[in-house]
Amino acid sequence: MKIGMSHGAGGGIMQGLISEIILENLKNKSVNGGVGLDDLDDGASIPMDDYEIVVSTDSHTVDPIFFPGGDIGTISIAGTVNDVSVMGAKPLAITNAMVISEGFSGEDFEKIIKSMDAVCREAGVSIITGDTKVMEHDKLDKIIIATTGIGIVKKGEIKRDSGLEIGNKIILTGSVGDHGISLMSYREGFGFETDLQSDVAPVWGMVEAALKVGGVTAMKDPTRGGIANALNELASKSGVGMLIDEEKIPLKAEVVAASEMLGLDPYEVANEGKVVMGVEADKADETLEAIRKTKYGKDAQIIGEVTDNVHVVIETLLGGKRILEAPIADPVPRVC
Amino acid sequence: MKIGMSHGAGGGIMQGLISEIILENLKNKSVNGGVGLDDLDDGASIPMDDYEIVVSTDSHTVDPIFFPGGDIGTISIAGTVNDVSVMGAKPLAITNAMVISEGFSGEDFEKIIKSMDAVCREAGVSIITGDTKVMEHDKLDKIIIATTGIGIVKKGEIKRDSGLEIGNKIILTGSVGDHGISLMSYREGFGFETDLQSDVAPVWGMVEAALKVGGVTAMKDPTRGGIANALNELASKSGVGMLIDEEKIPLKAEVVAASEMLGLDPYEVANEGKVVMGVEADKADETLEAIRKTKYGKDAQIIGEVTDNVHVVIETLLGGKRILEAPIADPVPRVC
Repeated sequence: MKIGMSHGAGGGIMQGLISEIILENLKNKSVNGGVGLDDLDDGASIPMDDYEIVVSTDSHTVDPIFFPGGDIGTISIAGTVNDVSVMGAKPLAITNAMVISEGFSGEDFEKIIKSMDAVCREAGVSIITGDTKVMEHDKLDKIIIATTGIGIVKKGEIKRDSGLEIGNKIILTGSVGDHGISLMSYREGFGFETDLQSDVAPVWGMVEAALKVGGVTAMKDPTRGGIANALNELASKSGVGMLIDEEKIPLKAEVVAASEMLGLDPYEVANEGKVVMGVEADKADETLEAIRKTKYGKDAQIIGEVTDNVHVVIETLLGGKRILEAPIADPVPRVC
Repeated sequence: MKIGMSHGAGGGIMQGLISEIILENLKNKSVNGGVGLDDLDDGASIPMDDYEIVVSTDSHTVDPIFFPGGDIGTISIAGTVNDVSVMGAKPLAITNAMVISEGFSGEDFEKIIKSMDAVCREAGVSIITGDTKVMEHDKLDKIIIATTGIGIVKKGEIKRDSGLEIGNKIILTGSVGDHGISLMSYREGFGFETDLQSDVAPVWGMVEAALKVGGVTAMKDPTRGGIANALNELASKSGVGMLIDEEKIPLKAEVVAASEMLGLDPYEVANEGKVVMGVEADKADETLEAIRKTKYGKDAQIIGEVTDNVHVVIETLLGGKRILEAPIADPVPRVC
């Protein structure tokens, strides 16, 4: 068997590779009964006395490395900080392992480091240790940045993907598809007369506001595979279904237009600054208001609710119903 | 400026890149007053109530990926576990971010995962979360594995590179150059009739035994740049010198022979299962005995002592003295 592109695309084929080769061959996959590798959550946890250490890791290989709204540095910090955040933990620190291609521009490298710094300042996290390697130019294209985030949450307050309960409301913190569609538009050189930009941003501000209200049951940041993947993962891990009101899903007009031209489904492409979360029904309105007051949350919506169905069902704009499936693999070349 | 191979080679040129571009452009570099990025230690720490969380990260790009004595999987776990260990922290968990080249053999991938599992079992650590990406075959050669290790140490008991005190004895836990020289021999296809293998192994057993005695002041695992780099880093960060007795440095006959044929200095090439440590003089013998009783420590030696000199001075086999300099860059193509 040869590893193919779809094995890394965040869909069902990738899940197969992970289960059959990785999970199957490892014995030690959790520590002290915390969230571990088998849980395939956004990260993992190490329970200590009064709290849990939460960690998450990601290798960033975005193409192009500079794009409207950010660059690989922005995404390396935001992406990892976000994975820690959606476990309910306050992100504190980042480790940063970079592999750079021989001949890479020192000026571009400096720009990337400055982007990382900007997100760190905004999110209140520190890059506390790192590693820098250089690979021959014929062995690596440009740069790969692997970041690991470390956060802290009080014991018992960690949010797992499996936490949804029937009757919960589903909140989406803003418009979907901005990252994936803007990158694809930019990459294909389509001259859309648009200001469409990646939504890459740290989500901790929105998460913290929502957690303070006290009704959040589960969260996920919809990156690879888009909200189609994130909603299905939350539902299947929680053993529930969802009924989503399509009318409520925030979508920018430019994203709709570009999606049609590119033949892409905005529900299946990556976002880099959004959260979907389950919230106890009686706290949903208050949580929505709290999120809307934050920097990136003003377009947040309650988009549906958790049901005892086994599928994520969308009530379409025309009033019909269809099942929203998790993508088998990325519908587009990798953009995150 | 273009990034060159020497920028990632673990020597002085790399220190320059790190200082001028990375450290210079980042504001947040530590958390709660712990060991941070500016310390350029083996890892970093996040002080909590009664203990510190210790983290270390590394991108592994070894060539060849399978070599006598191990593979990139072995080294990914051992290397990261060792960096946590030499900070005095018990390693608990690993995060594992892999980027695989499209077309990479599934069988080789499985072998690598099995090697990771074996080291995890031996070291008592768990791979608790991960990330898997696939890159186009013309953009990445083979595989890169970025691991981050998380460990715990009681507050105040962390071992920093700067901890050496004048009069301390220097212990080296075994023979040097095995990893670098065996890989270079293998890679060059030299038909040495030898069993020379990489020394890749987790060092926590040796470190734990030494820590129990109570006199360890500083530790480092001599990887890139070899013991020449590790001893100089310890000395310069502690503001001291060393006098090393060359006769006491354990060197395998095959390493000496192969080094001469390859024109390499075994003090400057990587090790993957050794520790150099400073120990209070009155506890040095007891510490040495404790290390010698462990699986990988039977050849440990007291190789010298900490002086008020500013250099690492070697008393050579012929009775002369020379300064052991830190290498400017790797003397060999990257082997770790």
